[in-house]
Amino acid sequence: MKHLARVRIAGLGTYLPDAIVRNVELGKKLGVPDGWIEKVTGVVERRRAGGETTAQMAAAAVRNALDDAEAELDEVELIIGASAAPQQLIPCSAAFVQRELMAPAGKSACFDVGATCLSFLVALHLASLYIHSGKYRCVVIASSELTSFALNPSHPESAALFGDAAAAAVLKPTRKGESSAVGHYALSTFSSGAHLTELRGGGTFRHPNDPCTTPEDNTFSMDGPAVLRMALETMPGFFKAFLEQAGSVREDYDFIIPHQASRRGLEVMRRALGLNRDRMFINLERRGNCIAASIPLALAESRSAGLLQRGQRVLLLGTGAGLTLGALELIF
Amino acid sequence: MKHLARVRIAGLGTYLPDAIVRNVELGKKLGVPDGWIEKVTGVVERRRAGGETTAQMAAAAVRNALDDAEAELDEVELIIGASAAPQQLIPCSAAFVQRELMAPAGKSACFDVGATCLSFLVALHLASLYIHSGKYRCVVIASSELTSFALNPSHPESAALFGDAAAAAVLKPTRKGESSAVGHYALSTFSSGAHLTELRGGGTFRHPNDPCTTPEDNTFSMDGPAVLRMALETMPGFFKAFLEQAGSVREDYDFIIPHQASRRGLEVMRRALGLNRDRMFINLERRGNCIAASIPLALAESRSAGLLQRGQRVLLLGTGAGLTLGALELIF
Repeated sequence: MKHLARVRIAGLGTYLPDAIVRNVELGKKLGVPDGWIEKVTGVVERRRAGGETTAQMAAAAVRNALDDAEAELDEVELIIGASAAPQQLIPCSAAFVQRELMAPAGKSACFDVGATCLSFLVALHLASLYIHSGKYRCVVIASSELTSFALNPSHPESAALFGDAAAAAVLKPTRKGESSAVGHYALSTFSSGAHLTELRGGGTFRHPNDPCTTPEDNTFSMDGPAVLRMALETMPGFFKAFLEQAGSVREDYDFIIPHQASRRGLEVMRRALGLNRDRMFINLERRGNCIAASIPLALAESRSAGLLQRGQRVLLLGTGAGLTLGALELIF
Repeated sequence: MKHLARVRIAGLGTYLPDAIVRNVELGKKLGVPDGWIEKVTGVVERRRAGGETTAQMAAAAVRNALDDAEAELDEVELIIGASAAPQQLIPCSAAFVQRELMAPAGKSACFDVGATCLSFLVALHLASLYIHSGKYRCVVIASSELTSFALNPSHPESAALFGDAAAAAVLKPTRKGESSAVGHYALSTFSSGAHLTELRGGGTFRHPNDPCTTPEDNTFSMDGPAVLRMALETMPGFFKAFLEQAGSVREDYDFIIPHQASRRGLEVMRRALGLNRDRMFINLERRGNCIAASIPLALAESRSAGLLQRGQRVLLLGTGAGLTLGALELIF
C-alpha cells in the first residue's frame, strides 16, 4: 500500500428495521418453491422497513456512528447522502438527514452522491479527499436503502435478494499515533451494461406523470446472468490494474469486504480474483443485498463481531449498476 | 484569493433544445395575463426539449466542451453527472453520458452528484480536489435539465420560471504559464427550509407505485417568498464568512456568475450582498432558471459573449433546494 491519506473511519453505525422477512413467508408471496430463494440468491432472511423514511433510517445510523466515533453532532461539517434511491427527488437526501438529526443550521454542507451500489465507496474516497486537503475535519456518510415499492414481485430473484438497512460512517483526520489511512481507489464504468441493472423510472426518461410509464418501470430490473458475465469479463483486469497502481498484492489485505451482490456473484468473483475466502466478510444470508448500505453495514457488522480490527489492511470492492467496478484499500 | 488549486476549466460546452417557448404562448396555456410572467419571474423566453433525453443533451454539451478544451474523448477519466433530475433512478446519469458519448469502456469512472441547483458548483469543487490530488487529469462535469413533466401548470410562477438546457465543463491541471485556479469554496445547508423547494416524488417517500402518490407530488413545488426570505436571512452571513475565509473582498472579483434563480431573487440578493450589477452575468431573461445547468450555461455564454475572459477572478454563487447556499471563487 502506498498513496496513503491520513484519514480515519472514526465511527460506524447502523440501523436495521425490526421486521424480519424469512424465505418461507416470502417464497409463498412470490410463488416459488421452498428452498428456491436461498439456492438462487443466498439470502435466508432480510429486513423490511415499516413506517421509517429513508432519512429517519439514515439519521439513526448516523447517531450510532457519531457515538462510536465519540464525536458531537456540531462537529459535522459535511453530510454526504450515498444511497441508490433518494428520499425524494428534491432536495438531496443529505439535507433531510441534517434535519432529522437536528444538526445545527448552516454548520454542515449537504449533498448526495449516486453510484448505486457503490455510492458509499465513492463517498468514502471523496470524504478522504476533503479531509486530506484540509477542507473538512468531520465528514459523515449516510447510506440508507428502503426497497418497499421498488421490488418487482414478478421477478422473484431480485424481489428476494434485497434487504432494507442504513449504515453510516464518520470520517476524521488520523491522529498522532494512529495508523488509519485511506489508500488507493479506483472506479471504472462499462456503460454498455447500463441497461443490465436498472430502474427506468424516477427520472426524466420514464417520468411518473408520463402516461407511457408503467408500474414496472418504477421497479428494479436486472439481468443477473448477463451482469455476472460482464463482471467476470471486466473485474479481473480491473483488479490487476488496481493492485499494480496500489503497489499491493492480494495477500496484503487482512480483511476483504465485498459488496454483498448475491451468493453466486460473490463466489464467482472470489474465485476469479483469487481471494481468500477466510478473509472475506459475508452478511448476505441474514441481510440480503442492501444496495449502497451493503458495504458500510458489512464494515460495521464485521467490526462488532470482532473480525475487523484497528490497524488491519482492508480491501473494499464490488460492482454496481452502470456497470461500474470499484475498489478502495484502507488501513482501518 | 488564497488557497488556490492549480486546476483549470479547460473547456465549456452547451446544448440548447431548438424549441423556444415565449411568454405570450405560455401565458395563454397557464391562464395568466399578458406581462404577468415577465413581471413575476423575469423570464421572457425559455427552451423546451422535444424528443431529447437528459443524457443526449448532456452528451452534446460534453462534446462541445471537449472541442473547446481541445481534448480527446479518450482522455476523460471521470464523468460527473451534476443535475437535479436524473435520466432514470438506476444507473447514474453519468453512465448514460458515457454511453451516449461512446467513450472507451472502462476508461472513465461515472457517478452523479446531487445538490439540486448547486450540483455543478459541488461537482466543480470535487473535480478540483481530484485533479489537485493527482488522482485524475481530465474530469468532465455534465449538467442537463429537462423539465417537461416536472412542472405544475397550476403553479404558473414555477411553471414559467424554468428552462431546459445542458452545459458541461472539462477540468484539467493548469499548465505552466497559465494562471487558472480554483480558490475558496463553501457550501452550507439550512434544512429547516427543506420543504420550501421540493419535489416530493421520485424517491422512497412518494414512490410512483405508492397509491398515495399524487401527480402533483411528481411536480416541482416552491414557496418563492419564503425561500427568498430565508435566503436573505442566511446569505449575507454566509457570504461574509466566505470572503473572510477566502481572504478576498467583493471588489476582487472581476466577474460574478450567480445561479439564475429568478429576477427578483437575483436583484434582492445582489443588493443584500453589495454586489456590482455591472460585473454580474444574467441570462435569465432568455434561458429561464435552468436548475443545475444554470451556472455552467452562464459560464459558457458569458465566455462566448466575450465577457468572461482568461485570467479574470470569478465568483460563482447561489442558493439551491435544501436550503443550501454555495459559493466558489476561481481564476478563469
